[in-house]
Amino acid sequence: MPAAPDLLLPAEPRQHAIARDLYALVADRPLISPHGHVDPAVLADDAPFPDPARLLIVPDHYLTRMLLSQGVPPADLGVPSRDGSPVEADGRRIWRRFAEHWRLFRGTPSRLWLEQTLRDVFGVTVPLSPATADHVYDEIAARLAEPAFRPRALFERFNIEVLATTESPLSDLGHHAKLAADGWGGPGGRVITTFRPDNVVDFEFDGWPQNVARLGEVAGTDTGSYAGFLDALRRRRAAFIAAGATSSDHGHPTARTVALDAAEATRLYDRALRGAAGPADAETFRAHMLVEFARMSLDDGLVMQLHPGAVRNHNRWLHARHGRDTGGDVPQATEYVHALAPLLDAYGNDPRLRLVVYTLDEYTFSRELAPLAGGYPALYLGAPWWFLDSPEALRRFRESVTDSAGFYNTAGFVDDTRAFCSIPVRHDVARRVDAGFLARLVAQDRLPLDEAAETIVDLAYHLPRKVFRLDREVRS
Amino acid sequence: MPAAPDLLLPAEPRQHAIARDLYALVADRPLISPHGHVDPAVLADDAPFPDPARLLIVPDHYLTRMLLSQGVPPADLGVPSRDGSPVEADGRRIWRRFAEHWRLFRGTPSRLWLEQTLRDVFGVTVPLSPATADHVYDEIAARLAEPAFRPRALFERFNIEVLATTESPLSDLGHHAKLAADGWGGPGGRVITTFRPDNVVDFEFDGWPQNVARLGEVAGTDTGSYAGFLDALRRRRAAFIAAGATSSDHGHPTARTVALDAAEATRLYDRALRGAAGPADAETFRAHMLVEFARMSLDDGLVMQLHPGAVRNHNRWLHARHGRDTGGDVPQATEYVHALAPLLDAYGNDPRLRLVVYTLDEYTFSRELAPLAGGYPALYLGAPWWFLDSPEALRRFRESVTDSAGFYNTAGFVDDTRAFCSIPVRHDVARRVDAGFLARLVAQDRLPLDEAAETIVDLAYHLPRKVFRLDREVRS
Amino acid sequence: MPAAPDLLLPAEPRQHAIARDLYALVADRPLISPHGHVDPAVLADDAPFPDPARLLIVPDHYLTRMLLSQGVPPADLGVPSRDGSPVEADGRRIWRRFAEHWRLFRGTPSRLWLEQTLRDVFGVTVPLSPATADHVYDEIAARLAEPAFRPRALFERFNIEVLATTESPLSDLGHHAKLAADGWGGPGGRVITTFRPDNVVDFEFDGWPQNVARLGEVAGTDTGSYAGFLDALRRRRAAFIAAGATSSDHGHPTARTVALDAAEATRLYDRALRGAAGPADAETFRAHMLVEFARMSLDDGLVMQLHPGAVRNHNRWLHARHGRDTGGDVPQATEYVHALAPLLDAYGNDPRLRLVVYTLDEYTFSRELAPLAGGYPALYLGAPWWFLDSPEALRRFRESVTDSAGFYNTAGFVDDTRAFCSIPVRHDVARRVDAGFLARLVAQDRLPLDEAAETIVDLAYHLPRKVFRLDREVRS
Repeated sequence: MPAAPDLLLPAEPRQHAIARDLYALVADRPLISPHGHVDPAVLADDAPFPDPARLLIVPDHYLTRMLLSQGVPPADLGVPSRDGSPVEADGRRIWRRFAEHWRLFRGTPSRLWLEQTLRDVFGVTVPLSPATADHVYDEIAARLAEPAFRPRALFERFNIEVLATTESPLSDLGHHAKLAADGWGGPGGRVITTFRPDNVVDFEFDGWPQNVARLGEVAGTDTGSYAGFLDALRRRRAAFIAAGATSSDHGHPTARTVALDAAEATRLYDRALRGAAGPADAETFRAHMLVEFARMSLDDGLVMQLHPGAVRNHNRWLHARHGRDTGGDVPQATEYVHALAPLLDAYGNDPRLRLVVYTLDEYTFSRELAPLAGGYPALYLGAPWWFLDSPEALRRFRESVTDSAGFYNTAGFVDDTRAFCSIPVRHDVARRVDAGFLARLVAQDRLPLDEAAETIVDLAYHLPRKVFRLDREVRS
Repeated sequence: MPAAPDLLLPAEPRQHAIARDLYALVADRPLISPHGHVDPAVLADDAPFPDPARLLIVPDHYLTRMLLSQGVPPADLGVPSRDGSPVEADGRRIWRRFAEHWRLFRGTPSRLWLEQTLRDVFGVTVPLSPATADHVYDEIAARLAEPAFRPRALFERFNIEVLATTESPLSDLGHHAKLAADGWGGPGGRVITTFRPDNVVDFEFDGWPQNVARLGEVAGTDTGSYAGFLDALRRRRAAFIAAGATSSDHGHPTARTVALDAAEATRLYDRALRGAAGPADAETFRAHMLVEFARMSLDDGLVMQLHPGAVRNHNRWLHARHGRDTGGDVPQATEYVHALAPLLDAYGNDPRLRLVVYTLDEYTFSRELAPLAGGYPALYLGAPWWFLDSPEALRRFRESVTDSAGFYNTAGFVDDTRAFCSIPVRHDVARRVDAGFLARLVAQDRLPLDEAAETIVDLAYHLPRKVFRLDREVRS
Repeated sequence: MPAAPDLLLPAEPRQHAIARDLYALVADRPLISPHGHVDPAVLADDAPFPDPARLLIVPDHYLTRMLLSQGVPPADLGVPSRDGSPVEADGRRIWRRFAEHWRLFRGTPSRLWLEQTLRDVFGVTVPLSPATADHVYDEIAARLAEPAFRPRALFERFNIEVLATTESPLSDLGHHAKLAADGWGGPGGRVITTFRPDNVVDFEFDGWPQNVARLGEVAGTDTGSYAGFLDALRRRRAAFIAAGATSSDHGHPTARTVALDAAEATRLYDRALRGAAGPADAETFRAHMLVEFARMSLDDGLVMQLHPGAVRNHNRWLHARHGRDTGGDVPQATEYVHALAPLLDAYGNDPRLRLVVYTLDEYTFSRELAPLAGGYPALYLGAPWWFLDSPEALRRFRESVTDSAGFYNTAGFVDDTRAFCSIPVRHDVARRVDAGFLARLVAQDRLPLDEAAETIVDLAYHLPRKVFRLDREVRS
């Protein structure tokens, strides 16, 4: 159990006591991480982590965007430039610069995550501040040199039962092959993959024509036709399943779905191959492919995840200088009721389909997402994500969706992170928030303590295993 | 007063004590139920209720949709099929199946409602669980056989002062005539009706042409012309008023209003009679009829209620198998500011009009609904409804609308239910939530206790009587 | 420190104690009022205020719209009519009428503001009620006759460090010249102005052609061309800066921005001069001018404020009878992510620009505003405003934006009021709410007390001074 026993629990004594008891039931449960972006090479190679700044700051766009918002350019924090122009290379100077702006993170989840990571993972007891920056840096650096801080050792210490990474269909899944060979990966393994086909589905993705050509090579089919394209996707799904995948993931600007017939889909695909597809074509094809992937899921059992609503590269200056995934994305209003109707109409009542829907737009919780999840067998609500992955938003999620969806149409916590060392604290935060929410129900005589106890264990452990089909017997 | 004294009250001791005192002021007040869907035959005939499952589960789409969302088909719960194909007929088996899934309702209002109903209405002290299902079933069944559990006896025990049912203009209001003859109905009576004309106003309603023809017959006018249609509606409103109605109710997909001139309205109506009206025509005509009904209200005094924002039959599979009102509806984003402008521009400042507006979209509370209600004499805010009728949403309603609308531009609680036995607990929940909200104002020195006390009685009793014109002297 | 020590602080004892300590750190700090609508004549002339009703009720549209919503016509409260038809002229009768409806304000910020103003500013200890109306009126009237209740004396007593009024470019800034001459105004002075050009930028503004002609006269340029129009605006900005302005303010129906080239802008402007511009032209030109003003800010350093989202004169009856700004405005849904993109793309990463964005639509807090402010150097979040300026909305603001924007991308409290006597209580409410929010973070072990203490002082004092460039050395 982490060292801050009262962190995030309700302040009011009676609820605090109940929440603490509930939290104790899950504090030491294994972590189920069915969706995230840890680089599989980290666990396949099990090499020591780099210096503290390169591990904890440079790749964390939550941190670099906040400093950018106060005028600190990402280059000063070591974020690589697209054109190779020099950026800060000294880890210690990056760390000092970051520590100087530590106050910016007061009240943010980043603060919680980093603070607990320093203390619980690295045993740093001195609070971070400009004055302590060097000391903290040295302590972390010393730890990182120890064998106990290699990725696999941390994985064991973190008590992770299963971790899913995310790969594109173009990946040869080599790291996962290595993991499987080492007894860490493959179906039912500790590290599995997830099928994320955005780069071949989205005509607007950088290098789409090259991507579909490469897809054909990797799959051993001709993607010069729509039928061949579908065939290639089916083959890659099979390869991903062989590498342990139990789910696919789809990151789209909207939640739109549409069921085209094969002739219409073929026309769009051919138009894109000719370079003649416009933005509306791209949106329609993305929407159609969601229905197509749902159909494939009926056959191969992959759980679908849909992450809609991000406007990618909104900060164009940032994208031009530092590329994708460096903090320049922003959410937009996301509509689900009409957008998902075609997919739900086709397969929403089919018990073979499982669709986990996420949102960056909390202003759909009670109006759209909870009523849909509480009315369709196929639909589950994913955890608050990205800009919503915070104690406040996790609380609002439970307060807003439980009425119509209950607890059992939600999918459990998903850390969705590439920051490996932050995985424990992220799950811990979710467990604490759920403990607080359930404690209020108990304190207000809305739920008996024994049922709250069963519920929190379900939310932390059994539910994500079930929803993401991680509890299945693996055929050997 | 119900048996769970602390249910839903704030956990913090000081606010709890204040809330308990405030709640005590309204716990035993008569119930005002100005809008709902109880079948008037229940009270007109006063026949014993059917078995527990048929009374409490089969017709409750909150319950059957939640089980559907976890893969239990409505047919297995006895929900009648449209094509007459067999569904589960054994009440006890339905009840057991439901009890097996009772955990799904943790944290939901359905759980609260059913739990309190079992205890307070039927005196069941054993908690519901798969193990106790038969015992609970038998207890309820035994109670239902007693005369004290006939509808009128329960009505007395529930301390309902007035209950409004909802009928279409095609209804002959026969049950209400029976109630009036028995001294239960008619103007100023205990059971009154509400004028709900959707099935003759909405070109897209199943059987619209037959409905308007039938409207002409019931009203004794020729609805072959728009003028005759309006005349028929006016006559039916008069008949409804004679059966005790003090309000009309309008369930529309949007809140749109528009003021057509008679020639334009005539053109649309004639087009619909010819079967040539499209969806846009239907939307325009619905929008126009809201303004037309507002005009009629100036003359006959019916309070208008507007329930916008439901996408009906979103789950098409469910609709195809089991028909309307079985849990397949979902809310959609609802715009009020521009939508209501034509109606408000025409009559929003007229003291003769009273328009109670509801929402399924809480993300309009502070932005649209409260500022409108706090700025137009005619406008009142209806209680959180359907997917929002829960302790959490009732609390958010007060927290979000009181700033701009105060308490006195809200219309009091409305149960809006067809589940007769749940009426007491639904009102009780609203009273407890209001007690908690007011207790916070008192504890934070924002409102003196005596004013909070006056307010909670107003909210529970005086305000709904006034807003729905239930406090008027009835002309004999 | 005001007389109600516990007002608005959390009721739970532990958080209450922390909040009280935090609040004590800022209770007596000078007030920074970087945006508002106090008439500069009030402070320039320093004449005694009129009677209590004319001071506190007649000009306060929060009060008159609430009474209108319950059927009290504004004319009965002395609100001037446009056509000069008689309205209530007797201050005492207006005050009595208002007091009769005092209950309508239970739970509203208006109640808090007026109650604290009566007690803390005027020393009235008797609670307002219909029975005490005359007594309260007489007490206030007696105070208003005393020299200590002249505007400048109150300004000193209120401990206002700086107050910005708001003027149009057509203003000759005469009152500010008087204030400067008296040692109260000018750059770095206690009373400064703000540049608000809506009436010359918005083709749909009443009298736009006359306004731009007059702009030319005031600026000494020919506004018959777009280039001359821009030149006039630049000159007036310089004049405003000379009168102490550090910011501009822009009240638009939407947040839309667009970067036209000079030829396109010229075409629109010329079309408007010819009287041929339509609503879409007006919207495009407003959107373009925001980018143009951002460009000017790079040169002259004025901080931009954007107040989007009000539908002006929604209550057309009220506007027809009593004119603008009498309570007939209503918010509408406001989109920021795509709307601000052109401006942010042009200058959002430029450290010279500072753009403070407000909202009437809280359902953008976590989805749009906080992610944008947390990702662009130029962007700051303005305080909850108008319909959102309440304890509940201020709390929700912190709960919703801190995750992605932290505290330091918010701009501090802005009272935005024309009600001079309410300025202290408005700031006091914001400080108390921030104390409560920070106390929860401390009580939940999310922030150490010393950092919370530094934060609350920053929010109340240092941050608004910095964001609005009120902390700069003034060149003499």
